Amino acid sequence: MPHHRYRPAHERVALPGPEPRAWPSARIERAPLWVPVDLRDGNQALAEPMGTDRKRRLFDLQVAMGFKEIEVAYPSASRTDFDFVRHLVDATRNGEVPDDVTVVVFTPARRDLIERTFEAIEGLPRAVVHLYAATAPVWRDVVLGRDRGEVRDLVEDAAACVAKLGGDRPGLRFQFSPEVFNLTEPDFVLELCDGVTALWDASPDRPVTLNLPATVEVATPNVYADQIEYMHRHLARRSSVILSVHPHNDRGTGVACAELAVLAGAQRVEGCLFGNGERTGNVDLVTLALNLYTQGVDPMVDFSDIDAVRRTVEHCNRLPVHPRHPYGGDLVHTAFSGTHQDAISKGMAHHARRARELGVPERLAPWEVPYLPVDPADLGRSYEAVIRVNSQSGKGGIAHLLRAHRGVDLPRELRAEFSRVVQAATDDSGAEAGAEELWRLFEGTYLVPGRDGEPVRLTSWTTDRSPEGEHRFVCTLRVHDREGDYEGTGTGPVAAFTRALAAAGVEVTVVDYAEHATEPGASAPVAAFAKCRVGGRSAWGAGLDASSVAASVRAVLAAVNRVL
Amino acid sequence: MPHHRYRPAHERVALPGPEPRAWPSARIERAPLWVPVDLRDGNQALAEPMGTDRKRRLFDLQVAMGFKEIEVAYPSASRTDFDFVRHLVDATRNGEVPDDVTVVVFTPARRDLIERTFEAIEGLPRAVVHLYAATAPVWRDVVLGRDRGEVRDLVEDAAACVAKLGGDRPGLRFQFSPEVFNLTEPDFVLELCDGVTALWDASPDRPVTLNLPATVEVATPNVYADQIEYMHRHLARRSSVILSVHPHNDRGTGVACAELAVLAGAQRVEGCLFGNGERTGNVDLVTLALNLYTQGVDPMVDFSDIDAVRRTVEHCNRLPVHPRHPYGGDLVHTAFSGTHQDAISKGMAHHARRARELGVPERLAPWEVPYLPVDPADLGRSYEAVIRVNSQSGKGGIAHLLRAHRGVDLPRELRAEFSRVVQAATDDSGAEAGAEELWRLFEGTYLVPGRDGEPVRLTSWTTDRSPEGEHRFVCTLRVHDREGDYEGTGTGPVAAFTRALAAAGVEVTVVDYAEHATEPGASAPVAAFAKCRVGGRSAWGAGLDASSVAASVRAVLAAVNRVL
Repeated sequence: MPHHRYRPAHERVALPGPEPRAWPSARIERAPLWVPVDLRDGNQALAEPMGTDRKRRLFDLQVAMGFKEIEVAYPSASRTDFDFVRHLVDATRNGEVPDDVTVVVFTPARRDLIERTFEAIEGLPRAVVHLYAATAPVWRDVVLGRDRGEVRDLVEDAAACVAKLGGDRPGLRFQFSPEVFNLTEPDFVLELCDGVTALWDASPDRPVTLNLPATVEVATPNVYADQIEYMHRHLARRSSVILSVHPHNDRGTGVACAELAVLAGAQRVEGCLFGNGERTGNVDLVTLALNLYTQGVDPMVDFSDIDAVRRTVEHCNRLPVHPRHPYGGDLVHTAFSGTHQDAISKGMAHHARRARELGVPERLAPWEVPYLPVDPADLGRSYEAVIRVNSQSGKGGIAHLLRAHRGVDLPRELRAEFSRVVQAATDDSGAEAGAEELWRLFEGTYLVPGRDGEPVRLTSWTTDRSPEGEHRFVCTLRVHDREGDYEGTGTGPVAAFTRALAAAGVEVTVVDYAEHATEPGASAPVAAFAKCRVGGRSAWGAGLDASSVAASVRAVLAAVNRVL
Repeated sequence: MPHHRYRPAHERVALPGPEPRAWPSARIERAPLWVPVDLRDGNQALAEPMGTDRKRRLFDLQVAMGFKEIEVAYPSASRTDFDFVRHLVDATRNGEVPDDVTVVVFTPARRDLIERTFEAIEGLPRAVVHLYAATAPVWRDVVLGRDRGEVRDLVEDAAACVAKLGGDRPGLRFQFSPEVFNLTEPDFVLELCDGVTALWDASPDRPVTLNLPATVEVATPNVYADQIEYMHRHLARRSSVILSVHPHNDRGTGVACAELAVLAGAQRVEGCLFGNGERTGNVDLVTLALNLYTQGVDPMVDFSDIDAVRRTVEHCNRLPVHPRHPYGGDLVHTAFSGTHQDAISKGMAHHARRARELGVPERLAPWEVPYLPVDPADLGRSYEAVIRVNSQSGKGGIAHLLRAHRGVDLPRELRAEFSRVVQAATDDSGAEAGAEELWRLFEGTYLVPGRDGEPVRLTSWTTDRSPEGEHRFVCTLRVHDREGDYEGTGTGPVAAFTRALAAAGVEVTVVDYAEHATEPGASAPVAAFAKCRVGGRSAWGAGLDASSVAASVRAVLAAVNRVL
């Protein structure tokens, strides 16, 4: 591949000179202002752009999630976009847009298009007019055919036009974006930005938003951070400026660019839900907000039902969210591998213990479970999908699924044994085994081994307890082809049953035994597990019954039949 | 949402003390060693893990692309994985694996599993045995129930076992991963790593790979870079160590972590094609390699047919690549928006001119087209998908599509006019207009306006040239309902035709005119465009014909009919 056709960032990007660099040591301690641009920049990138219905649905979602500033349209670019702004003017009049939500409209630096933009927002009590102009060298040379001075004049004329049309309107604020900021000479961007804030008379009461887009990603994210820190340090009227960033994701580092830019001084981030947008997308606000959340920082937007957010976004964009998309994909809280499942299973048990020790609900206890950077429950997801079983899985995950879906908690040794059974089955099938399939495997192996062909069958039985405390077990047994009545006595029903078996010629030693209720409450079914030795060989069996005695008898019988 | 449940990275991650920090000023000037782990870590995360067939297909792809070290299995974890390594032993014997490709096998730090791993690779001439152990505090406390000293003993025992089984085998190298490196105390990781390199007697001739996984992403990527740089500076036997990283993507910053880690001293990167892997995936090697490519650095792997790579990966993983996935998604070289299309269109024309000036083919000329960070042709893609038209699009993109698909190059004024026609249609439909649909719109509007109901019809015509150089146009015209024979003379056939029209009572002025061949070669069809004024109103019309005279006559007639 002809790599020599491309120039490295340090030759293309006009980097600021040697500067102090504070961002690598900084920390993000509060959320920036998130501004979704799905309805404008995201919408520009859809094969089927949203009409008013889909736009309104996404707008309402964003308002409900808690976004306070929302870019809604490029009104001079299409009738659809113009109409949607007019629709929002009506919706605002009808009280359908909260007072603390401000819409942003986008316009190029051309007088007729600026005028059309102001027509669109006529009647809106609050709005941001967002002016952009191409400023990077390739754009100046190839697209505009203007030099730096001419571009500066163009920006100043447009900014003056914006000021004239909207300068004295209360509720109106202004935003400027020098396009492909990250490819423009820093001194030129500074000159343009300072010119615009002067012209718009930026003040702490009426700050101007300066938005610095990485319209196309061209360098590792530390370079963008350096560029943002340069602006942060050198902008005039800094306290009257809201420093904003707008990363795209061409190099797959949009999220990193936004995070490092915030470390470098950015206060506002434009992006889209799940990263829709031109080409590889705008930076993903879902990931950014939840990255802060998992650092213990309030994200200021609500993702407590992430699947509802995702459904609306997928409907409006007509694009899927990938199964591995951070936080929102179908597979992102799932572990198939045995070691991960084991660790998660232990981590969840530890989490429950810790919550009890702290005396707080599990949903509020500090979260630190291996391999799960976020509690799926915080995003409105269940633990259902966390552990899934296939040939890569181990005993921990399998035991977890039986416990979660059937209330059956296998003894330690049986977990290891059953996991080999499952692995043989999944190695053969090459497919995943769901909770139901695991249960069928468990049932066929331990609960009802052999079914109709068992060597030992218990036709009927009763048990009672003598006044002296001895248990007596009376039964009809068929051993191979011989049927007869037998009885035995012992310290408990299991011991008494083994004596009855001995009387029928089957010498059994119970070498391990466990039982537990499968649900809370007195009438819950009981699961029993017995490891029995018969003639030098041993095996596990299991029983499940409303009565614990019946469960234990079944477990012993199943174990005996598995040996024989 | 209960964000207080989570602790920020600076409280969870045991950061190295204040250190010199060189990575923010570093540059990546050569590719690290890429090691795909699709067949191991990626495979662990699939609902339906790959069997030998799918594994072999992906392995062959990776070999063909130029990967030199490939992790292929976790042989002690499942029969499937064990069998695949045996399959590769046979394939190697049969000469199906090039001599410069080394496979890596993965094993936990347990004697029986290490032995099983060595059984798997018996007979392989070259291999890396990759030993891992959980070392992070939560893993030690919750999963292993061991303290630092016990974990150190466990690692040393396992490393000694590996050395004993494989130490004197030529062609064998060793790798160690302290798991969840990024959550483990730096001094402890250093102690473990230095212990292992001593035990394995790492030397420049037989270096040891130390792989430092961000098994779960927990902090902004600069933190990982600091952690890697600390190791880079402090490791013993540094020149006998291949420093490797293994980022995951839980925070959507896996690519950034890998890039900053390389700036910080990493020499080897483990990841998966298109970022498959546990939960949100391993870091994506496609994006990493092509990010280097677009910096002018040889990626050392071949993506010149990215769609073939993608098809194989999708087949083997049974997971899709998202339409916005960097470099490989369906939409990543597509522009719908008018401003982007206009810039791309101008940029492509500029690129062609520059290639001519330099005297090199366009495919080799330096690439700097706005909004296209990579030439799609370098990835084996056509320009077909670059410009697509909907209501967000403008004249540049529409003109581009007509030129690209029909060879028809609209005059400047007609571009603007036709784009309004297209936008009205796409605003109404809300859908995309493909090249075919654009052509139908153009045809219905300018080539054959009105179809059967045209006010003026030309039933038959001939044209000739007098010896004096005057053109004569003789025709049968139907104007509204009146048909008659007319003729006119002029300096050219168009002028002569307008005289004939005047004779029929239709006074026409041709105010603008252009024509061009639609293909190279003498017999190419000609497209003609005429703007005509009739009775104070004017309109554009177009004609397309093998003869340029016929094309021009049709264009004038179409324009006249559009006015009338």
